[in-house]
Amino acid sequence: MTETIPQATTEALARFAALLRPADIPAAVLRRAEDLALDWLGATLAGQAARPVNSLQRFHLAMGPADGPSEVLGQARGSSPLHAAMANAAAAHWAEQDDVHNGSVFHPAAVVLPPALAVAQALGRSGAELLCAVVAGYEVGIRVGESLGRSHYRIFHTTGTAGSLAAAAAVGQLLRLDAAQMLHAFGSAGTQAAGLWEFLRDAADSKQLHTAHAAGTGLTAAYLAADGFTGARRIVEGPQGLMAGMSSDADPQRLTDGLGTRWALAETSFKFHASCRHTHPAADALQRLMQEHRLTAGDIAAVTAQVHQGALDVLGPVTDPQTVHQSKFSMGTVLGLIAVHGQAGLADFDAHFRAPAVVAFRDKVRMVLDDEVDRAYPARWIGKVTVTTADGRQLSARVDEPKGDPGNTLSRTELEHKALRLAAYGGATTEAQMQAAIARIWALAELPRVPRLLP
Amino acid sequence: MTETIPQATTEALARFAALLRPADIPAAVLRRAEDLALDWLGATLAGQAARPVNSLQRFHLAMGPADGPSEVLGQARGSSPLHAAMANAAAAHWAEQDDVHNGSVFHPAAVVLPPALAVAQALGRSGAELLCAVVAGYEVGIRVGESLGRSHYRIFHTTGTAGSLAAAAAVGQLLRLDAAQMLHAFGSAGTQAAGLWEFLRDAADSKQLHTAHAAGTGLTAAYLAADGFTGARRIVEGPQGLMAGMSSDADPQRLTDGLGTRWALAETSFKFHASCRHTHPAADALQRLMQEHRLTAGDIAAVTAQVHQGALDVLGPVTDPQTVHQSKFSMGTVLGLIAVHGQAGLADFDAHFRAPAVVAFRDKVRMVLDDEVDRAYPARWIGKVTVTTADGRQLSARVDEPKGDPGNTLSRTELEHKALRLAAYGGATTEAQMQAAIARIWALAELPRVPRLLP
Repeated sequence: MTETIPQATTEALARFAALLRPADIPAAVLRRAEDLALDWLGATLAGQAARPVNSLQRFHLAMGPADGPSEVLGQARGSSPLHAAMANAAAAHWAEQDDVHNGSVFHPAAVVLPPALAVAQALGRSGAELLCAVVAGYEVGIRVGESLGRSHYRIFHTTGTAGSLAAAAAVGQLLRLDAAQMLHAFGSAGTQAAGLWEFLRDAADSKQLHTAHAAGTGLTAAYLAADGFTGARRIVEGPQGLMAGMSSDADPQRLTDGLGTRWALAETSFKFHASCRHTHPAADALQRLMQEHRLTAGDIAAVTAQVHQGALDVLGPVTDPQTVHQSKFSMGTVLGLIAVHGQAGLADFDAHFRAPAVVAFRDKVRMVLDDEVDRAYPARWIGKVTVTTADGRQLSARVDEPKGDPGNTLSRTELEHKALRLAAYGGATTEAQMQAAIARIWALAELPRVPRLLP
Repeated sequence: MTETIPQATTEALARFAALLRPADIPAAVLRRAEDLALDWLGATLAGQAARPVNSLQRFHLAMGPADGPSEVLGQARGSSPLHAAMANAAAAHWAEQDDVHNGSVFHPAAVVLPPALAVAQALGRSGAELLCAVVAGYEVGIRVGESLGRSHYRIFHTTGTAGSLAAAAAVGQLLRLDAAQMLHAFGSAGTQAAGLWEFLRDAADSKQLHTAHAAGTGLTAAYLAADGFTGARRIVEGPQGLMAGMSSDADPQRLTDGLGTRWALAETSFKFHASCRHTHPAADALQRLMQEHRLTAGDIAAVTAQVHQGALDVLGPVTDPQTVHQSKFSMGTVLGLIAVHGQAGLADFDAHFRAPAVVAFRDKVRMVLDDEVDRAYPARWIGKVTVTTADGRQLSARVDEPKGDPGNTLSRTELEHKALRLAAYGGATTEAQMQAAIARIWALAELPRVPRLLP
């Protein structure tokens, strides 16, 4: 191929996604892709008993075939790739324990792994091909999310919108689309991109719908492209494309930033607390402050979390959470769990989100916009808190890289423990099943066909 | 119900959609709903041999069950309601012969009839219930489209976006959702709303995807709501909803304009020419001018079509159409067919869109923004053209209501002829089948169960 593709275009991004091969990807990136696959599986299994997830599972099992080649996690029967991908994607984001890419505020695993796994199983692709597809999905989705900018995220759930293109990239790899077909797939994915934050105000179930929608529309777009169906060539940057319609600070340069040398997948963070990522920096800072000064919750009269604008936008509307899910978007509740129980895990939210001690602490917490934190965001998620103690002292603490970020990442042992805890929480699997699934994921690169993870 | 619902809210619109019953609807509106159902069937059957439609049909038949209770038009086998609705919606808009509501620039049939028919068949609902569901879908989709305003339509394909809520309303009626469930369905539909005009620049296939997407997401939203899945309460007007994210001139008052007294369905126009509706007013004006002055194409040196801004936005990028579909968005081609062949039907585009005489005429046509036309739009679609004749005269003509508009509508005989022509064009049905389908549609209000239209 000697023709020149203009940089900073959807076309260049599509070409990269189509031509990527396992040999192009550094070993460390492939190992991190395996880490992220395990982390995704745990997050997905944690959601197996959740009402909104079960609604989406029932719907997709009812509308799809009686059985099929693609695994529906937590269910005895399989389905077609579309419905398996959508059912699994519905579960992935529920527990708020799936991964996040800071710079794009994008949760890649929830929208990339489900369609990639479903299609790899349906087509009998190898583990190496699945990992390459996952990398393609991450690299595309993260760059689309970054290019849409912060104005996009103020209204739109980037995981839902950029997620459609991420899913299309992953599935397009597995379908072996050429560069032109991949560009058509991106066009068809991008023109279906959707997901509004309005649901947060009502603690509604839309987040599960957004990940399912992104996985389903991206998969659909790639299958259609393989069949000759065409899409817009400039769906992201064109005058009636995503940037024009859904962003006021878009940056096309980010679309192709460092393609082939910068591996955005390896920048992706694992979540440590079971809450919205926007709460994590302050939670880590408060934890550090309380440890350093040997404080208990009762020693604290007031907390000011110094945050970026995005945190105010997403968390600000949640002042009196009525549900467990909503409480994960309440900065006060998260800091209350940290202060009172020393951690903010899934079981902690379930048991204590409305406990009087937590609610009392919650009402001592306020958020303020911090210039340094806001300028660093979203490239870095700095945590800063200031505490006024009951005896009148002013204390402050900061963390520059929250637990789970690339410079402060989780080991494979920590990842296994996290996945086992999450699977146990969801209740759909035995520990033995989960141990076997872990072994399969660590062996993925050598497997000639992607197996069921939970046969 | 004694509680007061604030007007001009999604909540009031959802309550109307949930509580509407056949007895609330004037007989003339129900008869017009039957007219629109037949017109939809013809438009859908016209698309049966189209490549992008066939791609979507193949995909949905492959991903869905082996058979099912819902009819997939043009196919021997049925499917689940989701896949039947999406496959049928993919075909409905292809021929550009489906209906349009002027004020909202919204094509209701393509996104309302397919999910309504599929679900009515699956649930064994009566013809009267189907008609009531169709009315609910039209009333909701048109008002959402109107409320999103002209700025929305500059970037977004309103049929795709408002279409999700229209489909949810129709399906929600058939599922007998209560007002609270209907509001959840609207929240889930609106947060999946999508569809960008960027594809027009490349003559890509996205329009078929948009109608399928709207039908599928709306149906999904309604089924999920019936199962307890929740959505945002203010998905249209809320601070992170559709208006905030996808419009700069939204008007919430339009959401509930005349609910229960103004029947927007009855304002819907039938299409006469086989092209984008934005070309119709000028086409009718040119036809009138040529008849009045007894001109032939060769008598005309130049044509100026005086149009509204929306026409410039949608048609402006199409200067040298490469495909039949793209040529339906070329004002020059449409006026060329009118001038050279006296009509612009489906077969005329296929045979002549690149014929030298048509191309020569096309290049004599330019569009200019007209202040009067633009101010009247979208409530009225005025057609104005000015012609310079080869012998140097300046002539002009106008039409105030194009053929097919409510004040200039098609009779049942004209509608039957149109539907028979369109079905024959698509080639998937015999004339006898189509005559039987026509009889079923005229009898719909009396049928205790909605039958297959083409058994």
